[in-house]
Amino acid sequence: MQSFARGLAVVRTFSAEAPAQTIAEVAERAGLTRAGARRILHTLQHLGYVEAEGRLFRLTPKILDLGFAYLSSLPLWNLAEPVMEDLVQDVKESCSAAVLDGTDIVYVLRVPTHKIMAINLGVGSRLPAYCTSMGRVLLAGLPPAALEARLAQMRLEPRTPKTVTDPARLRELIEQVRMQGWALVAEELEEGLVSLAAPIRGRQGEVVAAINVSGQQHRTPPVVMLERFLPKLLKAAHEISAMIGGKGQGG
Amino acid sequence: MQSFARGLAVVRTFSAEAPAQTIAEVAERAGLTRAGARRILHTLQHLGYVEAEGRLFRLTPKILDLGFAYLSSLPLWNLAEPVMEDLVQDVKESCSAAVLDGTDIVYVLRVPTHKIMAINLGVGSRLPAYCTSMGRVLLAGLPPAALEARLAQMRLEPRTPKTVTDPARLRELIEQVRMQGWALVAEELEEGLVSLAAPIRGRQGEVVAAINVSGQQHRTPPVVMLERFLPKLLKAAHEISAMIGGKGQGG
Repeated sequence: MQSFARGLAVVRTFSAEAPAQTIAEVAERAGLTRAGARRILHTLQHLGYVEAEGRLFRLTPKILDLGFAYLSSLPLWNLAEPVMEDLVQDVKESCSAAVLDGTDIVYVLRVPTHKIMAINLGVGSRLPAYCTSMGRVLLAGLPPAALEARLAQMRLEPRTPKTVTDPARLRELIEQVRMQGWALVAEELEEGLVSLAAPIRGRQGEVVAAINVSGQQHRTPPVVMLERFLPKLLKAAHEISAMIGGKGQGG
Repeated sequence: MQSFARGLAVVRTFSAEAPAQTIAEVAERAGLTRAGARRILHTLQHLGYVEAEGRLFRLTPKILDLGFAYLSSLPLWNLAEPVMEDLVQDVKESCSAAVLDGTDIVYVLRVPTHKIMAINLGVGSRLPAYCTSMGRVLLAGLPPAALEARLAQMRLEPRTPKTVTDPARLRELIEQVRMQGWALVAEELEEGLVSLAAPIRGRQGEVVAAINVSGQQHRTPPVVMLERFLPKLLKAAHEISAMIGGKGQGG
């Protein structure tokens, strides 16, 4: 089954920087021989995941079927969107949903507000968990041993002067999030950016995802976010949890 | 490289109906032996694409990296979104972008309007090309021989009483779309649904994607869509084409 890992590695060599590649380029990026890269590209082409034009190979939209298999298997996917759209219409800020993967959060749903400054994070985008509000909510939902294991894998880097990079302080903040049931992160990821997140809970009260609203400091100071947005965010998270059979905030 | 095809087939057995599966269920859905399914699931687990809880296996968000590799390699992806958001704000209807894959259109970007009735089609969703406005635009962009090959593969089924299922008539409509540079499809996919699409063109004038606006017949009759939305849709398509170095509508 090593060929399977190699095939996936070849898919992942394609990106914004390398949308179309020759066999030699794929070989170099994937750490394969040219013969190996050629064989995998031809298999991918045969399966319809890659197309060739002259010497250049590109991914086809069939690749999206794989991610779609994941997204459609999320219980919250279709159910959460209308609730999140109502929230966006109400608070006039973007709302997203994310899950934890290793030490990253991965966006699984995004309802943008129609503002020029809207942050551009599509489904599948990743951000580090330690300095994001959804990350802290998701980390707070882990059992203690699992949390320690994730913390041990993290590189806590200062993304701004305000980023918490001290592991003991981060642990305290996560514990606070666990107690209060929500997280506010102001300017730890990016200057000017404030984000507020709450957990989505499954049947056993476990945290399965997080949703957030985020805005710009100058437009919506953190204190205003707490006063005006927090009750609405918690209500939306509770509704989504209830729909997927979970226990909501109180669980 | 058959193991690669099998691995991808295993990923695709997961869905909204089967978010968590036992080895036996995966084996049955993928047409594999239990031993074969077990080996592939363990490889996927080792690579981080699958996680196990007791006897049940689930996909992890890492799967999204594969689709993300495709989406981020699309030239139009980040560039198109702000233009589409402006269009949505202007016309108050949802706007989407899609590409052609075989005889289907695949959604690659979606800007919903904040209405309860908004059609729920996420990135990666598929619809048949023959009865959708973006499908007709994308088919009209194919060279004649490629178009004939796709038409030969299609099963033209009546989705509503208005769906065009006669191949000769469909060919005429596609030719008309090619001449006029846009497509209007009223109630051929779904009763009440009207959609208007225009092509996004690449450097050589080739059609690389389509964008649309869609609405409900009772709210926005087709004639109103043409009068009010068509000029704005064509302008947005032209802007996006220009940004990716293409020739826009005039190409």
